[in-house]
Parts: sequence; C-alpha cells; structure tokens
Amino acid sequence: MPDLARVKAALTSQVIETPSWGYGNSGTRFKVFAQQGVPRDPYEKLDDAAQVHAATGVAPVVSLHIPWDRVEDYGALAGHAAERGIRLGAVNSNVFQDDDYKLGSVTHPDPRVRRKALDHLLECVDIMDATGSRDLKLWFADGTNYPGQDDINARQDRLAEALGAVYARLGADQRMLLEYKLFEPAFYTTDVPDWGTAYAHCLKLGPRAQVVVDTGHHAPGVNIEFIVAFLLREGKLGGFDFNSRFYADDDLMAGAADPFQLFRILHEVAKNGGFAPETGVAFLLDQCHNIEAKIPAVIRSVMNVQEATAKALLVDLDALRAAQGSGDVLAANAVLMDAYNTDVRPLLAEVRQEQGLNPDPVAAYRATGWQERIVAERVGGTQAGWGA
Amino acid sequence: MPDLARVKAALTSQVIETPSWGYGNSGTRFKVFAQQGVPRDPYEKLDDAAQVHAATGVAPVVSLHIPWDRVEDYGALAGHAAERGIRLGAVNSNVFQDDDYKLGSVTHPDPRVRRKALDHLLECVDIMDATGSRDLKLWFADGTNYPGQDDINARQDRLAEALGAVYARLGADQRMLLEYKLFEPAFYTTDVPDWGTAYAHCLKLGPRAQVVVDTGHHAPGVNIEFIVAFLLREGKLGGFDFNSRFYADDDLMAGAADPFQLFRILHEVAKNGGFAPETGVAFLLDQCHNIEAKIPAVIRSVMNVQEATAKALLVDLDALRAAQGSGDVLAANAVLMDAYNTDVRPLLAEVRQEQGLNPDPVAAYRATGWQERIVAERVGGTQAGWGA
Amino acid sequence: MPDLARVKAALTSQVIETPSWGYGNSGTRFKVFAQQGVPRDPYEKLDDAAQVHAATGVAPVVSLHIPWDRVEDYGALAGHAAERGIRLGAVNSNVFQDDDYKLGSVTHPDPRVRRKALDHLLECVDIMDATGSRDLKLWFADGTNYPGQDDINARQDRLAEALGAVYARLGADQRMLLEYKLFEPAFYTTDVPDWGTAYAHCLKLGPRAQVVVDTGHHAPGVNIEFIVAFLLREGKLGGFDFNSRFYADDDLMAGAADPFQLFRILHEVAKNGGFAPETGVAFLLDQCHNIEAKIPAVIRSVMNVQEATAKALLVDLDALRAAQGSGDVLAANAVLMDAYNTDVRPLLAEVRQEQGLNPDPVAAYRATGWQERIVAERVGGTQAGWGA
Amino acid sequence: MPDLARVKAALTSQVIETPSWGYGNSGTRFKVFAQQGVPRDPYEKLDDAAQVHAATGVAPVVSLHIPWDRVEDYGALAGHAAERGIRLGAVNSNVFQDDDYKLGSVTHPDPRVRRKALDHLLECVDIMDATGSRDLKLWFADGTNYPGQDDINARQDRLAEALGAVYARLGADQRMLLEYKLFEPAFYTTDVPDWGTAYAHCLKLGPRAQVVVDTGHHAPGVNIEFIVAFLLREGKLGGFDFNSRFYADDDLMAGAADPFQLFRILHEVAKNGGFAPETGVAFLLDQCHNIEAKIPAVIRSVMNVQEATAKALLVDLDALRAAQGSGDVLAANAVLMDAYNTDVRPLLAEVRQEQGLNPDPVAAYRATGWQERIVAERVGGTQAGWGA
Repeated sequence: MPDLARVKAALTSQVIETPSWGYGNSGTRFKVFAQQGVPRDPYEKLDDAAQVHAATGVAPVVSLHIPWDRVEDYGALAGHAAERGIRLGAVNSNVFQDDDYKLGSVTHPDPRVRRKALDHLLECVDIMDATGSRDLKLWFADGTNYPGQDDINARQDRLAEALGAVYARLGADQRMLLEYKLFEPAFYTTDVPDWGTAYAHCLKLGPRAQVVVDTGHHAPGVNIEFIVAFLLREGKLGGFDFNSRFYADDDLMAGAADPFQLFRILHEVAKNGGFAPETGVAFLLDQCHNIEAKIPAVIRSVMNVQEATAKALLVDLDALRAAQGSGDVLAANAVLMDAYNTDVRPLLAEVRQEQGLNPDPVAAYRATGWQERIVAERVGGTQAGWGA
Repeated sequence: MPDLARVKAALTSQVIETPSWGYGNSGTRFKVFAQQGVPRDPYEKLDDAAQVHAATGVAPVVSLHIPWDRVEDYGALAGHAAERGIRLGAVNSNVFQDDDYKLGSVTHPDPRVRRKALDHLLECVDIMDATGSRDLKLWFADGTNYPGQDDINARQDRLAEALGAVYARLGADQRMLLEYKLFEPAFYTTDVPDWGTAYAHCLKLGPRAQVVVDTGHHAPGVNIEFIVAFLLREGKLGGFDFNSRFYADDDLMAGAADPFQLFRILHEVAKNGGFAPETGVAFLLDQCHNIEAKIPAVIRSVMNVQEATAKALLVDLDALRAAQGSGDVLAANAVLMDAYNTDVRPLLAEVRQEQGLNPDPVAAYRATGWQERIVAERVGGTQAGWGA
Repeated sequence: MPDLARVKAALTSQVIETPSWGYGNSGTRFKVFAQQGVPRDPYEKLDDAAQVHAATGVAPVVSLHIPWDRVEDYGALAGHAAERGIRLGAVNSNVFQDDDYKLGSVTHPDPRVRRKALDHLLECVDIMDATGSRDLKLWFADGTNYPGQDDINARQDRLAEALGAVYARLGADQRMLLEYKLFEPAFYTTDVPDWGTAYAHCLKLGPRAQVVVDTGHHAPGVNIEFIVAFLLREGKLGGFDFNSRFYADDDLMAGAADPFQLFRILHEVAKNGGFAPETGVAFLLDQCHNIEAKIPAVIRSVMNVQEATAKALLVDLDALRAAQGSGDVLAANAVLMDAYNTDVRPLLAEVRQEQGLNPDPVAAYRATGWQERIVAERVGGTQAGWGA
Repeated sequence: MPDLARVKAALTSQVIETPSWGYGNSGTRFKVFAQQGVPRDPYEKLDDAAQVHAATGVAPVVSLHIPWDRVEDYGALAGHAAERGIRLGAVNSNVFQDDDYKLGSVTHPDPRVRRKALDHLLECVDIMDATGSRDLKLWFADGTNYPGQDDINARQDRLAEALGAVYARLGADQRMLLEYKLFEPAFYTTDVPDWGTAYAHCLKLGPRAQVVVDTGHHAPGVNIEFIVAFLLREGKLGGFDFNSRFYADDDLMAGAADPFQLFRILHEVAKNGGFAPETGVAFLLDQCHNIEAKIPAVIRSVMNVQEATAKALLVDLDALRAAQGSGDVLAANAVLMDAYNTDVRPLLAEVRQEQGLNPDPVAAYRATGWQERIVAERVGGTQAGWGA
C-alpha cells in the first residue's frame, strides 16, 4: 500500500497553475455572457488568482496571455503577484487575433505576416526574461478551412523555421512548450493537429522543446493517458492544459466531464515519475467559463485535479504490478478501481488543515466576501475577455 | 435511364434559399475577420443575395434572422427584394444572444425568461405575417454545460409548452420548422439534440410542425441520408440547412467537405419525391464564411448543391431497383456511382444557357463589378455580423 | 438528504438480469479465445448464472438467446433455474447467423428470407409462452454496407410489417423491446440505427412495444442519459443492455470504461421513477468477455451497476432541485458530484450482510471453489459461444 | 495544365498490390458468410489475383499473410505467380490468432509468449528471403481492454525490443513497415495506436523502418492526408493499406465510402512525389469483403484507386500554387475541385485500350467465365478465410 505520509507530502507540494484568462469573460461564437466583478486588467486577474491560492493552497502560479496581459512594467506585475503570495508562470503567445492572421501566422503564405508573428513570439521571450517565467507556451490557430487552400508541407516548413528561430532565442533555463489541437478554429487542416506532429518538431528542436497535452484537443476515442505515458517515456512531456470536454474543445472545468479519465491520466503521471519536480511537468488549467462563476469554477477545478491526484497516488503499485505480471486482468483492474472508488475528500481535508487551511476551499472562499467586494468595486472600465 | 428533359426541368425549377447572415461577417470564438464591402443593413444583404440569384438563377429566396434583420417596415423590405427579383423566405428566430439567455430561453428555469423568449418567437410570426413568409425556423441554443445543472425532463416540459404556444399562433399556411443540433453552444445536454427529439415534438404538435436537417449538426458517423429518408417517409421533413463539416458544426460551404454525402442525401430526396414542390421541403444554405469572400462563397455553395442535385437526378432508378431487388450488391452500388462519377458541369452549363444565363456563375458575378462597387461604396456604418 | 432506509430497500430489491451468452466464449472478428470450464449447454449456463446470484443477491434472472439456448423442453429449463434460485428472463431473438441473412432478415429484399426471419421471431414468442418470459428483445443486424445496395425506406416498410406481425402475436402480459444500434455488422446503413427510429416504430405498434438502450450502441459524443430521460418521459423505456465502450460497441464490463456516465444514466432513472417495478424497466447486462474470466466478470459488472445505483440513490434531489431552480450552476453540479464522489462500497457491504450475504461478492465466489470445479468437470463436449 | 502524356504514363505504370486474404472468406464477429468458389489454398488465391491483374493491368503484386499463406515451398509459390504474370509482394505477419496471444504478442507480460511472437516475425523474414519480398508488414493486435490491465510503458519497452531484433535481421534490400491502428481488437489501449507512435519507433530503428497508413485505422475526424503529407516530408511513408470506413475499421472496398478523401490523399502523394518508384511507397488494398463477390470487389477497388489517382494527377499544380500563394481561398479550392469533378473514366478506358486491355475491367472479368468456373471446380476442401 502507498505510504500515507508520502501521499500527503505529494499533495501538499502539488502546484496547479491557473490561467489569467480564466478570470475574465469568455464564451462561444454565439455569445459571450459577461459577469459582474470580472477583472479589468492583469493586476485584478492576479488578485483573483490569489484568492484561489488562498483557498486551496496549491495554486501559487498564474499563466499569462500576451497581448491580453500586456502591461508597461512586468517587474511591477511580478511584484504585485509576490505581494499576494503567488508568482507569474508560463507566457502564452497569441498569434490568432489580428486581421493579418486570417490565413495563418507563422505558417501564413505571406512572409510579412510570418515575420510579424515571429516578432510577437520573440517579444514573448522578452517578457519571460522580465517576469522570470520558465515556459513559453505556443498554440497556433494556424490551418486551413478548405481542401487545396494551402500546401500542407509548405506550411510545415514555415512552422519549422519559426520554431527554430524562437528556440534559438530561449535562455538556458527557458523552455518552449508546443501545444497541439485537432481542429478549431481551422476546420480542414491544422498545422499542429496531434501529439505526433508536436513531438516530431520538438525532437528536432532539442531538449528544451516539449509537448503540451491539452485534455480537450483530441479526436473522439483517442486515449490521452497513452500519449501522456509515451511522452513521459520519451522525456517530452512539458505539461498539461487541463479542462473537460464532452464533444469538441468544450473547455469546461477540469474533471467535470470524465473524472475517471483525469484519474487515469494522473495515474500515468504518478507511475512514470511525472510528479517529481525535476521532470518539469507543468500542471495548468485552461478553461473557458461561459456560464459559471469564474473564481469558484477555478477553485472547483483545482479541487478536481487534487482529488484525481490523490486517487492516483493511492494506487497500490506493488499490487498492480503483481497482477499485471501474472496476467490477471480482473485483479489488475480491481487494484486501479479500488483507488478510484476511494472517497479522498476526507484525506484532502486533512491535508488542508495540516497546512492551516480551511478544509473546504469553497466555504473558505465564500467566507472572504471577495465575490461581493469585486461585484461592488469593479464598476466601469472594460472587462477582461478573450480580446482584451 | 432518366429522361434528360425532366432532369433539366427539375434543375431549372430548383429553389435554393440563401441566408441573409451568410453575407455578413462571421467567425469562430477566437476571432471574427471582417471583410471589406460587407452589408451594413438588411437591405444591403438583399442586394447581395440578388447578385447570387442573378448569377445562378436558382437562388430567388432569402432567409431572414430576427433580430439581426429587424427593420421598421417589413413590407418595404419585401418590396426591396421584389424589385431585385427575389423574395423573403423563412424567418429564423434568435433566442440566444441576450444576457437573459445564459441558462436557456424557452427552457430556462425562470418563467420570466421563458416568457421573454416566447414573446420573441411570437413576434417572429408577426413578422412572417408581414413578409408573407411560410416558414418559422426554430433553433434553440438551450441546454446545459454541467451534469446536474438542470433537469432534462423539466426542460422538455418547458420546451413543449413554448412550442405549443407558437404552433397555436401559426396561420393556416404557415409552418414551424424545428432544428436539432448535437452540441454547441451547450456542452453537456442540448434540449433538442437529435432528429428523434425534434420528431417527437413535431408529431405531438401537428402536421404543420416539421423537422429541419442541418447537415453539420450530427455526431461523427451518423448517417444523415437515413434520417432524411426516414423523415420523408413520415412526412416530417421540413427542409435542410446545408453546410459542410469535417469535425463539428464547422459551417463551411455546402458540398466542400464531403460532396459524396451531399449527393447521397439528395439521392434520397429525389428517390422519395422530396423535390416535388408540394412536399414543401425547403433547401436552405446555412453557412459561416470565416475566411472566404462572402458572395462568391454563396455562389459556390449554390453550384455545389446544384451539381449534387444533377447527379442525384441522373441515377437510373429502374436499374438501381432491379439490382437491389436481385441482391446484387456490387451492381446496385455501381448504378449509384455511375451517376456520382458523371461530370455534370456541362449539363448545368447548358441548363443555364437555356435560361439565358452565363454558363459560369463565378465568371458572371465577376463580370458585374459588384464586388469592387460594394468595397468602394460600403464605407462607414456598422458591418452586419452575428450580433447585428 | 435521501432516507438511508429507503436507499437500502431499493438496493436490496434491485434486479439485474445477466445474459446466458455472457458465460460462454466470445471474441472479436480476429479471434475467440476459449476459456476452460465454459458451459457446454444452456443448463450449465444457468448453473453459472446461479453462482452470480448467490454471490451478489441481485441477479436472479437470466436472459436467453435463441437459437443459442434452444432446448427440447423449456419447462425443464425453467425448472432447472428455479431449483437454483433463479428464473428465466427476456428471450433474445437471433436473425443474423444464417447464410440466408447475408443481406438482412426481416428487411431482406427476398420475401422468402423475410418469412423465415419472421417465423423465428414468432417461435421466440412461443418460447416465451413456455418459459413465462415477459420480454421479447429484438435486435436486428439488418442494414447495408454500400451506398445504393438497397432502398432505405423499402427496408423500413418491411421492418414495420414484421414488427406488426410479431406485436399482434404477443400475449397480454408480454412486451416487445426494440433495440437500436449505430453500426456493426452493417457499415453503411443500419435499419434501426438510433433511438428515434426505434421510438417511431414502437409508437405506431402500441404500448407494449418499448425501446431498449444498449449503452454501447451510440455515436461518439451522444448523451445517453438524455435519451434515457426522454424515453422515460414518453413511457417508452423498456430496459437497458449495460456494457462499456471506449470506441465502438466494445462490450466491456458495465461501468468499466466510464463509471461517471453509468452514474448519470442511473441518476436519470432514479429521478424519473425508473426503478419502480411498475415502470417495467429491465436492467440487463449484455457483454462480450473476450479476455477476462467469465463468471467473475459478470460479478464485477453487477457490482459496478450496484455501486452506480447506490450513488444515484444518494443524490439529494431536494438540494439539487433548489440549486437548479435558482440557476446556481456550480451548486447544482456539486450536489450531483457529492453523491458520485461518495464511496458506497461500505453501504453495499452492509446491505449484503443484512441479506445474509458475504459483504464481498468476489471473495464469496472464490470461496465456493466453483471455478476449479467447472474447469475440472466440464471436459469434452462443445463449449458454448456466439454460434452455439 | 498537367501534361496528358505524363498522366497516362503514370497511370500505366501504377502498381496496386492486392491482398491474398481479400480472396478468401471474411466477416464480422457476428457471422462469416461463406461464398461459393472461394480459394482453398494460397495457389488458388494467386489464381484469383491473376484475374484481377488481367482485367485491370495494374495489380501485378500479391501480399501474403503468414501463417494463412504458409506453404512447403515458397519458390514454387513464387513460380506459380510468375507463370500467371504476377509476383509475390509484402509478407504480413500474424501474431494474433493463437491462444497464447490473448494478452498480447511481442508486448505480452510473459517472456515465453514474446519469444514465440518474435520467432514468428523472424520466420516471416526467412519467407521474404525465399519469396524475394521487399516488405515485412507488421500489424500488432496488442493492447489492453481494461484500465490497469497492463503497464503502457512496459509494453512499449517490450515492443521496442522486438522491433529492434527484427530490424537487425532484415536484409539490405528489405524494409519493415509498421502499421498503426486506433482500436480493435484491443479496446482500452493499443500498443501502436497512431502514426506518432509508429513514427517514433521507426525513427529509432533506422531508415528501413517506415510507417504504413491504413485508411480505416483512425479516430473520427482525423485528417489522413495531413499524416500522409507529413510522413512523406519526413521520408517515413512506407505505404498504404487502402479500404473504406464509415464508422470504425469497416474494411469496405477502397473509395466506396469517401471518394473525395481518397482523392485528397492521393493528391498529397502526387504533389509530394510519392508516386515516384524510388520513394518506395507501396499501394496495397486491405479489405474484408463480407457480403460482396470477392474478385469483382477487388476489381472495383482497384478501379476506384485508379480513378482517384487519375484525378490527383490532373490537378493543375501551377494554378494551385499560384492561388495558394496569393491567399485566394476560393480559387485554390476551385483548382482542386476542378480535377475532382472531372469524369476520368474515359481517360482510364483509353489508357487500358492503349495497353491492349478491355476498357471495362468488370466486363473483361465477366467475359472470362472465371467466376462460373471456380464455383464449379472449387468443391470440397476447406475454404480460405481469416483463420486458414
């Protein structure tokens, strides 16, 4: 059986990175439903993120999105975070919201647009220098909508060239995390549609290029934990973007649609050493809260990841390996399910109390009155959203 | 073999309805790429639609979307259309773009919101009275994002109540067309997710309630032509929303992603009498042109539907039935494929010339200089889009 | 909060029907892996099923499959069951394993084949008369592999005719349960591909025709609990075929692939009164154990359904409805998840002990020595499988 | 515009490899429908394959499947082929039809089973030495059905070890082609589920290890032509297994389900030089004819691949690149569609006549009387099928 003290230690030291854009307005192509109290600038996003960390104790890092989180003085932004007990994390580039990018960014047929996109990526590394961020997270909306629209391999060549230029610019302690996505917003080809494409590029770039697994970016039926295990085996798993989906890239709260899948993914992480800080696997949330309250939704997601992690850590690996080795299908499955079927909420409550936290993060947040305060105070200005 | 004169007559009399919103800006949740020359109001949309009809000869009807196409005087709008040789078609309701509709419209838990949504639907029937439209097309974005969020059957009850009230309001020559969609913008449950749900409601409502098949609204692998055939058998096929998809509801140009599927669908229509005007099947386009030029994209889509129709009409039904009856799998398939593999573009060129049209609609449109004119003239104002 | 005594009572009175074919050999098209000790005839299948009931206390009924379970004397078979504390359940017809059925059974273009298939279905009702079975379960492998192969609507006509003849033959206390399936073994069209088709036929047939939901028979992304709720609302849910799938109709143990989905389905059953015996909803397993030990696999599946049922019964419906009514998305979701996250194994252990059973069904079965006995004794003869 | 003489030359020199198992009985897990006249041994399979080549002129190579095609004297088998104007092609291994392989072959937890599987693979190379075959085609049914059943990465280690041993055994002119498949017969994990996994292994093995793309082995929505283009760019496309699918691995005739997709795939082959013999891309059929006549089904598939190839060769690449370079989405798409919409059957009839063949391969085959002859003569013996 797993040693409970080690399980608790692992849970206490877990770091779940929350996304600055998870605190702003978001929606679907049909409608963005604005919410009261939403932040108006990156500083207010950090204020909200600090509330999540205060309630959960495991969310001390915040991902930025450029240009949405562009500020004059990134040192001041980092200081604002530090004052609230949190820090700045990955820098996410954005080369999909300018009219120039209609037919692509770094893969665009026009070299002028490619240059503009590359300059933005290099600017993101400048920002990382200023914020002390380790990770540059690259997601490209690039692709085509119609057969024949552009040449698949010409676009790969352009992509490789841009990635190479960015990789060359990285500092010794910086990494490039390359994200893949099956489709949307491109509907015929996507230039980095699957882990294989991201892996092939990262392999050529070098050790500081790694793959990001967004749990909502796969075709129906694709086994995500297989990919996670394979990338860990190859030393190429840079991190996760956690969220939930029933259909496409629904971007619901992590753990909300298929908690068993989240557990299976984290079981592979645990079994293959991915929770060890030296492997550098980053655990980020990347969600789009369309109808639910923002801060409580992030808290709930953090808790869901925590619960799945706790279950993954409770798997009796010795018993599992013994059953696997003897070819006992039902016994091996039963070992895994025993951990999954355990109610880990009491254990997590204990872990929180030992850290001096309220055992119930939702109640903790409610007790702060923060929600009422931001609704009252954040009046006027422009609410943050996907375009700001 | 099919009689060529009858095929030509059918092609000449075909009516493909184009959507007013297909002429405005549209996009994905990531970005709307604005285009030059896009209409600023419903009148300009009709001007563009008239160009499509002038070039193709088979697109004399335009679907409206309320409130996007709300005007002071619908009689004047109809007159504007008539002056340009076209007419107003289906009225599409919109109960998904108001903050009140965050949790649903006619299925919302709050009766006040339901009332508001119902009032909008009834207003749409008022508009139909004014425009002389036959069809009220209902698509509901209603659904839930999270398990437990709301009660599936309570929402069905509310839906049934609203549909009943609208049905009761319809005039003797008016119809209600109920559209279904698997998902988006709702990601856990959708209140009308499949044809079965739409069919069950229409059956209870009565003969003037019929189902609309949007070709992009199904789960992967669902056989759309089966649904089309089944609904025709039951007298419940009200019409189509044509568009293309590779993944989800991509809303690409009709016939662009799977022209063979479009042919199979129209083969079922042809074989089951669905092209006969008295069946009332409406052939609409419903697309979202994100990156391609609007008017030429509609023209291309109209041509794609025409070509698939021509192939469907060329199927040798006598030979097909003989092969089917004798259980000759390969021969029956070959009969169908013979029609599909035929290049029908010469036939359609002939049909157009016999109508006094340019055999090449794309060239015809280019020759008008319309595109240059609207780019030059439509300066200032607010471009039409999904929110206007 | 749900009353614990009522929850326990519901769990004690639950009836899960196990399939006779679940005890025989099965496999994929690539290979059937035979197992030692597998039954050689229907009597031995009942012996195995009795072990499952002895271990779990909730599996007293066994589904038959004709012709796989054809015997001379069905009264004797029923007596054999009764002596072992179990009884015969639904009769499953089989019109897919004769060379005549290559192009269909009741939908075959040749009336001779249709007659043969219909005669088999009527024979199944004769068997029901002899066994006292209430339910005739109809699954048709009928469909086509190639576009054009046969006429979709002609096949619907033939299907309707056969169903009508069978319905007319049913006794007053007998039901017809019509199953749908997206695909396999037919790969282009399936004659009953979805719940809508099954529902439409059942509606025309009358109240004793109802729909069966097999949890493995849907397209990716289809929300099964929506269908379950809708059919319950319409009084048309006849029962379930439980099994698990990651991809297609994988026929894995119930609850193995997505236990949260199984819970959501049973939550709809619980909320809409489907556990009440008078609704007549049948809870069957329908699985294909390719690599795991048969009897323990059935026990595990029964336990998985029990656990999901217990969680569904523990949902605090008052709290849920309050949160739903107030539009509190996160609170409503949390009520549901509270029940799901509960470890119900102690409760079920208690329920078993109160019934005089071993709290651990797997251990109970192992203690009987049955497995060793059948391996030793069932030597020679022909092992039961999908063709026998 | 493409030069017609070059197009004809390319069509004349095309080589489509047909599978020996395509001439035997096959089916689904539900039923194998035997056909009259089916071969009883590998020699008779070659006789049938020779008929396909005689009718089409482009199918001179036959893939073998070991052990299904095991014979005493492979030299004699090769001579039998040569006498009929054809030759032996790829050797396909089979490590999935022995009871030992229930939990895997080269990835099995038991080293004894792994050794047995490896020995079979090495035997296949021995056979290649005897037949003069260039390609060893490896498909592994290996995987797991239940979460926890076995360790994903331990299985990868075992797989890598076996592949390395086989690669080391290959002669200088021999290749290893590694096939991937999403699922079936394994339903939870598959050890080579996607092109990324196959690519990563082939990259480590060396230049003579390449990836095979089976058009039926992907998740819904996966863009196969992207994979084809990418593998060609990396020099890692070894060949194709052509067949059609609507849902899963349906193994229907090539080009039957989505002819536009087949065209798009072959367009990438043409554009990226994949038809040049020196690239070594192999074009195989891999189908499972459940209900249609075997030899005519292979002929139809060969013709479908020919027609898609002809359309791909007719794409005006200069015009395409010009439109792509200028970002004209609709023009670029139109160039591609012009080729696709062309009826290439007259061109192919011409090509056949220039080779001295009947312009209509189906009629050519019928005129031989071969079908009647094999039905009359192949009486008694055991028909070839997936297990023989």
